[in-house]
Amino acid sequence: ASFSSSSSSKLLFRQLFEKDSSTYTYLLADASHPEKPALLIDPVDRTVDRDLSLIEQLGLKLVYAMNTHVHADHVTGTGLIKSKVPYVKSVISKASGASADFYVEPGDKIHFGDLFLEVRATPGHTLGCVTYVTGDAPDQPQPRMAFTGDTLLIRGCGRTDFQIFTLPKSTLIYPAHDYKGFTVSSVGEELQYNPRLTKDEETFKNIMANLNLPYPKMIDEAVPSNMVCGIQSKAS
Amino acid sequence: ASFSSSSSSKLLFRQLFEKDSSTYTYLLADASHPEKPALLIDPVDRTVDRDLSLIEQLGLKLVYAMNTHVHADHVTGTGLIKSKVPYVKSVISKASGASADFYVEPGDKIHFGDLFLEVRATPGHTLGCVTYVTGDAPDQPQPRMAFTGDTLLIRGCGRTDFQIFTLPKSTLIYPAHDYKGFTVSSVGEELQYNPRLTKDEETFKNIMANLNLPYPKMIDEAVPSNMVCGIQSKAS
Ligand SMILES: [Fe+2]
Ligand SMILES: [Fe+2]
Repeated sequence: ASFSSSSSSKLLFRQLFEKDSSTYTYLLADASHPEKPALLIDPVDRTVDRDLSLIEQLGLKLVYAMNTHVHADHVTGTGLIKSKVPYVKSVISKASGASADFYVEPGDKIHFGDLFLEVRATPGHTLGCVTYVTGDAPDQPQPRMAFTGDTLLIRGCGRTDFQIFTLPKSTLIYPAHDYKGFTVSSVGEELQYNPRLTKDEETFKNIMANLNLPYPKMIDEAVPSNMVCGIQSKAS
Repeated sequence: ASFSSSSSSKLLFRQLFEKDSSTYTYLLADASHPEKPALLIDPVDRTVDRDLSLIEQLGLKLVYAMNTHVHADHVTGTGLIKSKVPYVKSVISKASGASADFYVEPGDKIHFGDLFLEVRATPGHTLGCVTYVTGDAPDQPQPRMAFTGDTLLIRGCGRTDFQIFTLPKSTLIYPAHDYKGFTVSSVGEELQYNPRLTKDEETFKNIMANLNLPYPKMIDEAVPSNMVCGIQSKAS
């Protein structure tokens, strides 16, 4: 069966879109916990006010502002968020080489209330790319949800990492970007229909070698900012 | 509590976005039924191929292509869908005055497999605007989901109809458009934070009278096409 949303009595989940860079930001919180601890995955600088006001309206306490990788196509919102809500901690993978309050490594768990995310290494797009996956335990959301960053785009290009496909087929895939209007997919769907995965290895390598990806629009501005996402607020 | 997704063992649900008109199209299907009957709410002409290919990949059988109202800002996809999948029936409200295969009236139920939608009158934006709400029965998705068309925009303007607010507070609101990157809200949230609803009646009337809404971009092309959504295919 194909599922399209995850069911949990605890998880509050919102998918948010930034139109100029076609970026998805994800808000997750444990709504059953008295403090309603929340985290943001891949916030964008220009939508920080929208995100913080939603968090306030929902009565959540933002604890982590996380990135899946050093983005090249938008400026992360983590610095701005920290300047507005000083107790928020920024999080990124150690392998990214970027600055942040907390560095995570593959296998680490990030707890918020009774819920948690697992960190998986999915290098390819950038060296330090990680995928955050909801926990594999009975009281965690079912099916699991994977926040894949730029590792995998729905039915699309991306620089697909095969590690993702060791997750259960029902796992929902939430990418950092979508340019066609898709909001979610699953491991099973992508295994079957992602053009990159339905070709043999030789064909796949050729596609990868001939991508001719356009130079990302905002790379010159975005990468230097995003390397210091955790300390951007100190400089301002 | 604030929920953010509906839980059902039967419902397959996908939210799809068309960027130029910022329109959301919704795909719903009964995935537990042998035929996997599906419907689309507010399809857009330029994303019909994406939608039909997703439906095919998911193994669904599209039975209804529905509109919440005669749109002024994009051309409905129903005509094009019917020309590509002839057994699909177009659906719109009787009060809209538009052509379609099936006309619905407030109180009607639209069945797909073991699931159903209820039709509610929510005039205001246009005379024939309806909201489609998932059924109020134990085996239907919980919380309920309301597809409000242009009647209500999240935290925003729209030409809000108060009928929607007689639904349970947990009811999820899925609008036809969003210009700020929100994907979903709830009746409870909008009651508390929609600027139109937190003002007194006098202030509200003044806001409504002074909207100065821009003349919709595509109105001259969209409205005549959308009035004949059901027979567009016959003409082509
Ligand atoms: Fe990115
Ligand atoms: Fe519209």
